[in-house]
Amino acid sequence: SDPYSLLILPGDGIGPEVMAEVVKVIDWFGANRGMSFDVSHGLVGGASYDAHGTPLTDETMARAQSVDAVLLGAVGGPKYDSLDFAVKPERGLLRLRKEMDLYANLRPAQCFDALADFSSLKREVVAGLDILIVRELTSGIYFGEPRGIHSDGNNPGNEGGRVGINTQRYTSGEIRRVARSAFELARRRSNRVCSMEKANVMESGVLWREEVQWVHDAEYPDVELSHMYADNGAMQLVRRPQQFDVIVTDNLFGDILSDAAAMLTGSLGMLPSASLGAPMANGRPKALYEPVHGSAPDIAGQGRANPIACILSFAMALRYSFGQGDAAADLERAVERVLAEGARTADLMGPEGGTPISTAGMGDRILAAL
Amino acid sequence: SDPYSLLILPGDGIGPEVMAEVVKVIDWFGANRGMSFDVSHGLVGGASYDAHGTPLTDETMARAQSVDAVLLGAVGGPKYDSLDFAVKPERGLLRLRKEMDLYANLRPAQCFDALADFSSLKREVVAGLDILIVRELTSGIYFGEPRGIHSDGNNPGNEGGRVGINTQRYTSGEIRRVARSAFELARRRSNRVCSMEKANVMESGVLWREEVQWVHDAEYPDVELSHMYADNGAMQLVRRPQQFDVIVTDNLFGDILSDAAAMLTGSLGMLPSASLGAPMANGRPKALYEPVHGSAPDIAGQGRANPIACILSFAMALRYSFGQGDAAADLERAVERVLAEGARTADLMGPEGGTPISTAGMGDRILAAL
Ligand SMILES: CC(C)[C@H](C(=O)O)[C@@H](O)C(=O)O
Ligand SMILES: CC(C)[C@H](C(=O)O)[C@@H](O)C(=O)O
Repeated sequence: SDPYSLLILPGDGIGPEVMAEVVKVIDWFGANRGMSFDVSHGLVGGASYDAHGTPLTDETMARAQSVDAVLLGAVGGPKYDSLDFAVKPERGLLRLRKEMDLYANLRPAQCFDALADFSSLKREVVAGLDILIVRELTSGIYFGEPRGIHSDGNNPGNEGGRVGINTQRYTSGEIRRVARSAFELARRRSNRVCSMEKANVMESGVLWREEVQWVHDAEYPDVELSHMYADNGAMQLVRRPQQFDVIVTDNLFGDILSDAAAMLTGSLGMLPSASLGAPMANGRPKALYEPVHGSAPDIAGQGRANPIACILSFAMALRYSFGQGDAAADLERAVERVLAEGARTADLMGPEGGTPISTAGMGDRILAAL
Repeated sequence: SDPYSLLILPGDGIGPEVMAEVVKVIDWFGANRGMSFDVSHGLVGGASYDAHGTPLTDETMARAQSVDAVLLGAVGGPKYDSLDFAVKPERGLLRLRKEMDLYANLRPAQCFDALADFSSLKREVVAGLDILIVRELTSGIYFGEPRGIHSDGNNPGNEGGRVGINTQRYTSGEIRRVARSAFELARRRSNRVCSMEKANVMESGVLWREEVQWVHDAEYPDVELSHMYADNGAMQLVRRPQQFDVIVTDNLFGDILSDAAAMLTGSLGMLPSASLGAPMANGRPKALYEPVHGSAPDIAGQGRANPIACILSFAMALRYSFGQGDAAADLERAVERVLAEGARTADLMGPEGGTPISTAGMGDRILAAL
């Protein structure tokens, strides 16, 4: 059968070192499971800026459009903080999301049993936690126009004289398609969706609520749907996260709420994500997979990073891009096994101490468990 | 001396019953501390809508402008969910904030020692927690134009055919004045401010970061200032909230982050807030005080609500509007004393059980402790 084409964009900070472990895992599946991968590599973020003066070249963008799946490490770092907005590392990632039209960002917040004590929350509040946040990823205030920083004419009331503008803009169609993703996913889980917005304050939130409800009533009446204001959502995530199954929300709320949810689990270095778009000609969705964690510049290059989030992102690729659900589950079980056996990277060391294994050491353990 | 003029707006849900306890406290300070209060009452939110067809009448708005301090209970409830956006209960509150120009919303997130075990977080993560979130309250996406829901012409790509728009708009002057509030408050605390935005994604966040830095460098170089992306801020609040002293952020991020922070403490029914504007002719700031909790319609009218958040909001009024810091501290100590003695409303009952006291019972205990 046709090989699976992958574009690997390690990016900045710990991106390259965690991605090196993913490459080993890819090779293992190629060698042992009769899958064939066509892997190419490219630059994104600060790494691309350093080489080409732009956080994403047109060539890399075109390549991303043509492959089955993009695997991304992480972008950004203090080195690039003073760059102009238009060439910041983040713009490379945002361009990929936008031009590939990856509208559904799946962020599972799962608490690994072996790690429940790492959470700042009480064990009984997070043990067994398994929620899925579906974040809209191609619209809203991230991309709406007009935007920018302007001079405010000579408005004497405005000390400083500038104004900064961004626009939250959602169409019905944008809301409906991500709502469908959430309902579809819920059907394969506990069949419950909670939609979050600020419909009490924002008209775009009113539209969000109405369109999600419309999709529900017309197409998914069997799924249990509730609505929650996003501020209350943040509270409820802290108070009793187990009440949720699938959460669907917009780009900006999704950014904040999914990070809070990830931190609840105590497993930030463990959490993958998938960003999916419409099906391509071969039936596979446009797709990008990346860990939820950032580029962690403070520990980059030291072999201390945890590669599991990136490896589990590849597991999501196996499942959502290649229909290899069994292989994905095998990989996920291998990760659970090495954790249960006590393998720990530095980020997973408890107060009781012990000797952490390296990034490569963790990768090797997972290969061995496979 | 002149009496202190107060406008009491109990609002909806549990608002009236918690405010009844505040009235007792006001009377106590009048009778025992030589203060004189000129108290009037009005309607806001759903209560005003029911009586007048609007969530805030022009008369009540004018009265709010003329008093030293407004005390507000809570607004909203499912009964009003289907109302038009323009007459929703929340619009009454938002109009007060906007027309009184209450740009600095002070939201302390404090963990009361007697209640640390109520938090879903581990005791050691939250015990002694004392952070102050300063939220910009009169601008940003809450108020920016253009806004609304429109038909999207006949855009065939937009299934559903509508578009919802809100505008995040901040001027330099709006950012600078709330930054000054945060720096002033930090000087009276641990002298550290952390500013949160999404400068990596939003130009309004870039302006926010630059203007906060400008105010710091020009006027408050002695205060320690750091910047954090708001998604990371949400994470850090969950991970290690004690790292923060004062947090300053915009209207929308402040809404979400302050609710998450409030929930960390396990003391949601305990947390007050102050919303302050520019000084009036008598030197007092325009001011509105309200509990952080909502209208809790599910328990309204049962005498089960906790009046402490509303009572502590009055303590903030004593401190910030009337310069009665000692009286405020006495009231705060009285609250701590009754908690230490074990007085608990229903929301504060642990798994070990016990008999809760009523809303009025808690008010009486606090009066007795005074
Ligand atoms: C890096 C940044 C642009 C990005 C975002 O804000 O979406 C990140 O925080 C994320 O959540 O993937
Ligand atoms: C009631 C609502 C309009 C309000 C807000 O969004 O500001 C509330 O959530 C708050 O935080 O005071």
